[in-house]
Amino acid sequence: MSNRKCRIAVVAPASRLSPDVADKVRAVAGSLYPDERAEIFFHPQCFLSHGHFAGDDESRARAFLEVANDDNIDAVWFARGGYGSCRITEAVIRGLKEPARRKTYLGYSDTGTLLAALYRAGFEAVAHGPMVQDILREGGDAAIRRALAWMVDRAPKTLEPTVNGSNKTAAFNITVLSQLLGTPLQPDLDGHVLMLEEVSEAMYRIDRSLFHITSNPSIRRVAGIMLGRCSDVTANEPDFAMNEEEVARFWCDKSGIPWLGRADIGHDADNKIVPFGSSV
Amino acid sequence: MSNRKCRIAVVAPASRLSPDVADKVRAVAGSLYPDERAEIFFHPQCFLSHGHFAGDDESRARAFLEVANDDNIDAVWFARGGYGSCRITEAVIRGLKEPARRKTYLGYSDTGTLLAALYRAGFEAVAHGPMVQDILREGGDAAIRRALAWMVDRAPKTLEPTVNGSNKTAAFNITVLSQLLGTPLQPDLDGHVLMLEEVSEAMYRIDRSLFHITSNPSIRRVAGIMLGRCSDVTANEPDFAMNEEEVARFWCDKSGIPWLGRADIGHDADNKIVPFGSSV
Repeated sequence: MSNRKCRIAVVAPASRLSPDVADKVRAVAGSLYPDERAEIFFHPQCFLSHGHFAGDDESRARAFLEVANDDNIDAVWFARGGYGSCRITEAVIRGLKEPARRKTYLGYSDTGTLLAALYRAGFEAVAHGPMVQDILREGGDAAIRRALAWMVDRAPKTLEPTVNGSNKTAAFNITVLSQLLGTPLQPDLDGHVLMLEEVSEAMYRIDRSLFHITSNPSIRRVAGIMLGRCSDVTANEPDFAMNEEEVARFWCDKSGIPWLGRADIGHDADNKIVPFGSSV
Repeated sequence: MSNRKCRIAVVAPASRLSPDVADKVRAVAGSLYPDERAEIFFHPQCFLSHGHFAGDDESRARAFLEVANDDNIDAVWFARGGYGSCRITEAVIRGLKEPARRKTYLGYSDTGTLLAALYRAGFEAVAHGPMVQDILREGGDAAIRRALAWMVDRAPKTLEPTVNGSNKTAAFNITVLSQLLGTPLQPDLDGHVLMLEEVSEAMYRIDRSLFHITSNPSIRRVAGIMLGRCSDVTANEPDFAMNEEEVARFWCDKSGIPWLGRADIGHDADNKIVPFGSSV
C-alpha cells in the first residue's frame, strides 16, 4: 500500500448513472480513504440521457477518450453496464493515445466489449470487476470497496481466488462475449482461463450462447472455462431440464475445452476482480 | 406444374410438435392436392419430448439423417423452431450421404442453423420459409399452402417478391445468424442479398445483434441487407428511441453495407420463400 493518490475517472459507455448513485460512491470512497488517496471524478457525461444511452454515441466516445488520454488520470472506471458499449468501441480504439496505455480500466457486463478491445490493443491493466452502479446491490458497499482497493492498491484479496499471477485469465458476460465473436473486437484468448457469467437470460439462451462461444476455433484454444454465477435466470418454457453448470460442462465436453469448475464472479456484490492476461 | 408426387418428410430438429398440428397440416395438404401429389410423412421423432427438445440430441439427429439420406424422400420440412438445431447440426452434417443432396429443405427461425450448414456444404435446394407449426398462426393455412406450393411445384408466386432467380439471396432470423458468426457453420454470403427478420426481442438486443452481424468481415461482403418484419418486440427500458428500420439503416450506414429496404419475411403467416443462392 503506497501513499500515492489514485485519480479515478468514471465514464458511462452504456446506460446512464443517476447523480445520487455517484454521491453514494463518493461517500464510500471518503470513508475508506480519509487521506483522500482515492480521488473520484465523475465525468458529466455519466448523467446525460439519450434514448437508451448515457448521451449519444459521440458524447460517450468523447468522454471516454478525454479521460483515457489524460495523463492526470490513473484509472478509468465504468459507471455501469446496460447496453451501448459496442456502439462506441471502434471510435474509442481509433482515438486512444499513449497516456491511455498507462492506466487501469475496470468494468464488466456490457462494458466487456471495451475491455475486450483494449486488451486486444495490448493494454496491460484491463480488469473485469465491480462498477459504480453496484452500490445499489444488497451488500453493494463491499463491491465498491473491492473495486477501489484494486484500482488504488492492487490489493490481492480483491482477486478471484484462482487468479495467481502466473496463469493468464479473462472474464466476460456470456452474451457480451458471444456478440463479439467473429468481429475485429474479438480478443485472442489462447491459453487463458476464461471465466464466464450471466444474468437475466433463459437457460436455452445460455445454452445457445455457450454453443456459439465453444464452437469458435480461437476460443477452443483457451486453457479452460470456469463458470461464474448465472443469476436471475428467466423462465424457460418448457423447463430446460439442465442447470447452468450442466450446460457449461456439456459444451466443454463437446468442444474439448477443459472444464475448470466454478469462478467467483457474477452480477452481484461478490463479483471478484479478474485481470485480463497475467499481470497482477 | 407436374404430376409427379412430392414425398415430404417432417422432422423436428428443435422443439416438439403436437400430433393435432400434424393432423391439421395433413388436412390442408389433402384439400390442396386431392390427387395426393403432396405426400407428407411425419417422423415419429416430431412428437418426442426431452426437456426443451423434441427428443434428445441423438434422436433428433438420427431422425434428420434417416429422412435426408432416404432416396424415396423429395423434401425435408422442419416442423417448427423453438430451440435446439445448433445441438445437432455437427452430427447431421457429418452423417449426410449423397441422396441428401437431391432434396429440398425448408424452414426458418431456429432451424436457420441447419439451413446455413446445408448451404455451406453445397446443398442447392435450401430455402427459408414457413414450417408446419405456422398453421397455428392467424391465417396460417396460407403459410402451409405456400410451403407446399414451393416444395411440390416451385410455384413462383410463393417467393419473396425481390427474388428473381438471378440475384443470390439468403434469409435468417437475426439472433440465429448472430449465434453462427465465427463458427464453422457460418455460411459464405459474399454477394448475397441478406434478408433478416426477428421476433420477441427487445430493441437493444436487435441493435446489438445487428452490430454483431454487420461487424463481421465476411458479412460485410454481402450485396446488401433487407429487413423483414420484427414482430412482438418486447419492452425496452428506457424506450430505445429508434425503431427496427432506423436501427438496421444505422448499422448498414456504419458498416458500409448497402441498405436495400424491406423484405417480405417474418414470424407470421405472410412469410415468403427465400431460396439460398440463386437457384429458383
